[in-house]
Amino acid sequence: MHAGQRSKVPRNVNMENLRGGYLFPEIAMRELEHARKYPHAKLIRLGIGDTTEPIPHIITSAMAEQALALSTVRGYRGYGDEQGNQELRMAIARAMYKDMGVKWEEVFVSDGAQCDISRVQMLLGSRVTVAVPDPSFPAYVDSSIILGQAGKFEEETRKHQNIVYMRCYPDNNFFPDLENTPRTDIIFFCSPNNPTGAAATRSQLEQLVEFARANGSIIVHDSAYSAYISDGSPRSIFEIPGAKEVAIEISSFSKFAGFTGVRLGWTVVPEELSYSNGFPAIKDFNRIVCTCFNGASNIAQAGGLACLSPDGRQALNKVIEFYRDNAMILVDAFESLGIKAYGGKNSPYAWVHFPGSSSWDVFDDILEKTHIVTVPGVGFGPGGEEYLRVSAFGNRETMLEASKRLKTLYNHFK
Amino acid sequence: MHAGQRSKVPRNVNMENLRGGYLFPEIAMRELEHARKYPHAKLIRLGIGDTTEPIPHIITSAMAEQALALSTVRGYRGYGDEQGNQELRMAIARAMYKDMGVKWEEVFVSDGAQCDISRVQMLLGSRVTVAVPDPSFPAYVDSSIILGQAGKFEEETRKHQNIVYMRCYPDNNFFPDLENTPRTDIIFFCSPNNPTGAAATRSQLEQLVEFARANGSIIVHDSAYSAYISDGSPRSIFEIPGAKEVAIEISSFSKFAGFTGVRLGWTVVPEELSYSNGFPAIKDFNRIVCTCFNGASNIAQAGGLACLSPDGRQALNKVIEFYRDNAMILVDAFESLGIKAYGGKNSPYAWVHFPGSSSWDVFDDILEKTHIVTVPGVGFGPGGEEYLRVSAFGNRETMLEASKRLKTLYNHFK
Repeated sequence: MHAGQRSKVPRNVNMENLRGGYLFPEIAMRELEHARKYPHAKLIRLGIGDTTEPIPHIITSAMAEQALALSTVRGYRGYGDEQGNQELRMAIARAMYKDMGVKWEEVFVSDGAQCDISRVQMLLGSRVTVAVPDPSFPAYVDSSIILGQAGKFEEETRKHQNIVYMRCYPDNNFFPDLENTPRTDIIFFCSPNNPTGAAATRSQLEQLVEFARANGSIIVHDSAYSAYISDGSPRSIFEIPGAKEVAIEISSFSKFAGFTGVRLGWTVVPEELSYSNGFPAIKDFNRIVCTCFNGASNIAQAGGLACLSPDGRQALNKVIEFYRDNAMILVDAFESLGIKAYGGKNSPYAWVHFPGSSSWDVFDDILEKTHIVTVPGVGFGPGGEEYLRVSAFGNRETMLEASKRLKTLYNHFK
Repeated sequence: MHAGQRSKVPRNVNMENLRGGYLFPEIAMRELEHARKYPHAKLIRLGIGDTTEPIPHIITSAMAEQALALSTVRGYRGYGDEQGNQELRMAIARAMYKDMGVKWEEVFVSDGAQCDISRVQMLLGSRVTVAVPDPSFPAYVDSSIILGQAGKFEEETRKHQNIVYMRCYPDNNFFPDLENTPRTDIIFFCSPNNPTGAAATRSQLEQLVEFARANGSIIVHDSAYSAYISDGSPRSIFEIPGAKEVAIEISSFSKFAGFTGVRLGWTVVPEELSYSNGFPAIKDFNRIVCTCFNGASNIAQAGGLACLSPDGRQALNKVIEFYRDNAMILVDAFESLGIKAYGGKNSPYAWVHFPGSSSWDVFDDILEKTHIVTVPGVGFGPGGEEYLRVSAFGNRETMLEASKRLKTLYNHFK
């Protein structure tokens, strides 16, 4: 035996299938290089979708109170239920699923949507087939790879093997062409979509539910951005009749309440959802939650409860409106340049189209000329090529300054 | 299409291999039945290992302060690093791994040990072979089953297929007989052990590290109870030279700081640890943390930092000593009955031996006669048969009352 020895444990083959060039670290590297080249430039970061506005005091004071109560004999609490505090589960069922027939027992409180995506993947196991919107949040594909549902990346198609990519773009109103989509066991779907900002209409969601029912598929619906919907589109898949038999919904307080760092979310697994052998999925998910998780922080949960109080919701609505207005400033800036920009209306992102261009090239070009960091659309799947995602999280001055800098590019893009 | 339809998605075969009769729900059910039978009896719960003492104010006030800061423009923070705040990672490396050569970059902050056990399992994948101490914390086996490393439960042996059970009992000083243990890729080990309370000596841990090195295995060392060690046994596997090339360590603030509901822990993956192809495990674990997790709550992390301050540690040491004294009260009560009880010295549990008895029978008997809830040892593996785990979390009055009730059983057990 000597120093430097290797174990004889084989590396997990699934991990080998993950691509090395992970999106956000690559952006961070290019940002760093840019900062070295232009040490005096004032960088504007419209890249990662991270909330920036303070959390309303009514919410943080509830968390502070809960924290301090843990120092008292009467207020101390140890383990809570793995599924979340009943009071919060009831409040979520009431506030988010009114008249949709979702019971509080079907609501599982989590530490955020990204964490629950991988717990849902553990639930489903490695033998299911999967479809994802293209473009979409990279965690769907990456967690499918980690679980072994997906295979290697193919350079030619820029897709992973064994994944069905459902292209969403202006020509199909950012909704998959279901008639030409093969059946899969699992269909990941998010509305509003990250990155495109498109919220599926009621009629589109009805089609999706009907497609899943006809195929015996399970929809994993990500509604993390649903609070941003302003045009009356459904905020939950469970607004659609029949969805409870074919859908799981994952959601979050992150973008709704600025809880990206506080960590709180939830997942609804309806009692009606069953596997081909009739076994209810909720029983297995409960087991996953009890074995692989131990509940969200009780302090974060106290904050979640305050978010759902009438005063909390009112305060949060203002913040959401603020971000949405930011997004419209960005959309307008691009549109004034004659560049087509989507999103904004129902999301905190602008999704900007540069036909014929590589999205990394446009990313580099805008960074170079305006010192603005964005996200190249191709990071969200091959269908994101030619696009940039521009985040509206930031203060108003930043947005106006970004708008001004972008407008100076008029001649460049014309 | 009609109501009540099943999906065509197959149930995850791994989930089918989990046993239905889950330990703590079964205990809860029997407790409920008992409460119905004796509605006026004052139940004492020494079952689940849940902390009960208030958290020192110096720690909760740091969390309250962090919560309130999130309402200010200067203090607001969104996403932190998925790996944890650097300041906390550095504090953990300093406080817990002094002189062991653990770098802060090797420390990954988590929302608790149980959660990290399943993240480590995702890291390792379904094709590794696994050994666990018998008895031990059920999450090792259960997460191995969920990942597909283990097979069905066999009624005859009371073991799951494809798992090596390393028996730990008084005759081998609660340390596995490594000479007769077959090689596995992964060796789960915990010190102090939950439920036996046995802390491995330095010499035992040296044997374990040598065994792993000789076999090219990876040890997943759970040190969640290390703060309870009072006899000078190592508090970390990394006190043993050569361990960094063969071990991952999972730990927690839960039992150390009463954070069972606050949720905070950490895992150390050394840079030296590599797979058979030479690839460093830390790179894959970092990817798991970034894809399947989004960091622990920033409020909990502020509390963790306060725990590691000199005043915080001093306050926590008192709480730990208090629980350990509780444990000795329980150990003494059993010993005074002529019943052999282990643990206590280095753990908040008593591990009580009833030779020739079924542990569920003893559980029922003690519940019936003393209204005290314990945990039947067999819930921790077949090697726990004939034993009970009795938890020392609770206030002093409760322990003294439990001791009194147990002593009335003298004639019964004699």
